Amino acid sequence: MTTNQLDLSADAVTLTEQLVNIESVSQHEAAIADAVEQALTAYPHLAVTRRGHTVIARTNLGHRERVVIAGHLDTVPVNHNLPARREGAPESGGVLHGLGTCDMKGGDAVILRLAATVPEPNRDVTYILYEAEEIDAKYNGLRLLAESDPELMAADFAILMEPSNAAVEAGCQGTLRVEVRTTGERAHSARSWRGVNAIHGAAEVLRRLTEYDARRPVIDGLQYHEGLNAVFIRGGVAGNVLPDECVVEVNFRFAPDRSEADAEVFVREFFDGYDVRLTDSAPGALPGLDRPAAKAFVEAVGGEVNPKFGWTDVARFSALGIPAVNFGPGDPMLAHKQEEHVPMEHIERCEAQLRSWLTS
Amino acid sequence: MTTNQLDLSADAVTLTEQLVNIESVSQHEAAIADAVEQALTAYPHLAVTRRGHTVIARTNLGHRERVVIAGHLDTVPVNHNLPARREGAPESGGVLHGLGTCDMKGGDAVILRLAATVPEPNRDVTYILYEAEEIDAKYNGLRLLAESDPELMAADFAILMEPSNAAVEAGCQGTLRVEVRTTGERAHSARSWRGVNAIHGAAEVLRRLTEYDARRPVIDGLQYHEGLNAVFIRGGVAGNVLPDECVVEVNFRFAPDRSEADAEVFVREFFDGYDVRLTDSAPGALPGLDRPAAKAFVEAVGGEVNPKFGWTDVARFSALGIPAVNFGPGDPMLAHKQEEHVPMEHIERCEAQLRSWLTS
Repeated sequence: MTTNQLDLSADAVTLTEQLVNIESVSQHEAAIADAVEQALTAYPHLAVTRRGHTVIARTNLGHRERVVIAGHLDTVPVNHNLPARREGAPESGGVLHGLGTCDMKGGDAVILRLAATVPEPNRDVTYILYEAEEIDAKYNGLRLLAESDPELMAADFAILMEPSNAAVEAGCQGTLRVEVRTTGERAHSARSWRGVNAIHGAAEVLRRLTEYDARRPVIDGLQYHEGLNAVFIRGGVAGNVLPDECVVEVNFRFAPDRSEADAEVFVREFFDGYDVRLTDSAPGALPGLDRPAAKAFVEAVGGEVNPKFGWTDVARFSALGIPAVNFGPGDPMLAHKQEEHVPMEHIERCEAQLRSWLTS
Repeated sequence: MTTNQLDLSADAVTLTEQLVNIESVSQHEAAIADAVEQALTAYPHLAVTRRGHTVIARTNLGHRERVVIAGHLDTVPVNHNLPARREGAPESGGVLHGLGTCDMKGGDAVILRLAATVPEPNRDVTYILYEAEEIDAKYNGLRLLAESDPELMAADFAILMEPSNAAVEAGCQGTLRVEVRTTGERAHSARSWRGVNAIHGAAEVLRRLTEYDARRPVIDGLQYHEGLNAVFIRGGVAGNVLPDECVVEVNFRFAPDRSEADAEVFVREFFDGYDVRLTDSAPGALPGLDRPAAKAFVEAVGGEVNPKFGWTDVARFSALGIPAVNFGPGDPMLAHKQEEHVPMEHIERCEAQLRSWLTS
């Protein structure tokens, strides 16, 4: 078996193309992880470790400060969007099309370039390229690493190179899901007065949702924006039967000044009087921009810092007490879309800014 | 192949047992229809016709008046409830257990007994034993007969021997179904202000349903009772996406003084402002108790006359201009239940009352 070759001396756009052309749908990351591991092992200034299909490369220069720069190697399923295809030139708004260009092999290419070409960074760096971010959290390579080798994730600050339009998005909102359940009593719909309609019982649940007023707290100068939404509703037994159950699945996106427990209390009070079952929960991440390492990074990169509304793996660093930001090439709105693409200029800019921060 | 034997000289309870023990789940009525046809053909006072697995037996005595007495031969699927099992004696509240005892082989047995043993009724009788009542209306034997041979259904009055606790239930309510659809705009639930939640949009649809006030018109002295109920609700795309569609399926049961068209207008006005799509509709049947043949029957049978709330095949007679009632042994609430059964006394009483009406 020949291993796919990655040329870490190529420019980051070319390297993105190479990464995109190694298909790596979640749970099929062996080939790309092999290529990444082989390429990084060639550099004596890096200590390379592998866990499953997650590859960790560390400098060990004895600096007082250590930072993590991380990205996932997997993609959502192929959708007639391979191989990579260039359109235009970087300097004239050109883009690279193809699965994973945006989410997030552009970021991975930047990580690999920095790892290979900055042998003596001004702070120690742990580069992490991990598996299975796009599927059930139980497979998530970063989660598994935090459990098996937390010392490999130890740092003063972390950058997750998820697409953020090459700007800093700090922290992330948390997310939880509950099922709000109404019950009734079945009856033939021709004699409906003998039963209790559980779908009608959900009217008040939906009314409260329509009157929800989103909280928008400002944290470290960033305005977050919560949201409480029904994402599924289901009920019904047969076309001639009053249903005895209706379930509304509600997703609460909460600002990182709430803990998961606080968020759950809020939702339970919001639906007071109803059967509320928690099905899923993940904490937010505070931006942590007051921490020195984060401050220094934001100053070095410049530009506006935005809050991250969606949930990302930065929360896994936050849970370890490590401030973390999202900073990567590509528009997050294009992630998981058939037509995903990344501006080549984003890739180049992210690389240049991080290089400057690590070498200035 | 031996045909199952039916002994029409046996009492009606024994004959019910024999019919129950010929399995006849919808679309598997060949054996029971063969047995019924063979048994009836033995009587020279009957003109027997067969269409598919529907058997029609007519007296042709030249009476001014003709009545139909009808029942379906099929059952819902077997559910560990065959063969028939007797418990107790008719005079002490005994019942016959088993699939189809209630819905409606008790009624079928009465029909066969009358056909065989009343050679010279005081009005001509058309006995109809038909297939496929329990499934999609397109297979319904009575519907097919009304299309292929309407002259075989021609009558001044019709009795459908569906279970009605051996009392007369007149007419039936109509039924229609609509889908009430709300639409929105998808967005990631972490940035919900960018979308419009279609499930939240259904709050007002459900609110109107909770405030629905049922009309209870009195027709021919019978109080009907309408009903408007959500029977299904569905919406949702993914756990992190604002849904762009929510569909509430609503069943309207309407009194027989409304036409299908009137009923549709009512529902469309009720959900004014929403996308309402008619999916299914069947007319009610007026009780027609003011018609001479119906009056005579009700007087002969005696007892209280009740309105029929559920939809039954009496509406097919009503559509042909023939007043029709439900009158048969068994509790309609037990139909389609695993534990269905019929009081033997109901079978005997229905037979005696109809015999008296046809011979007095």
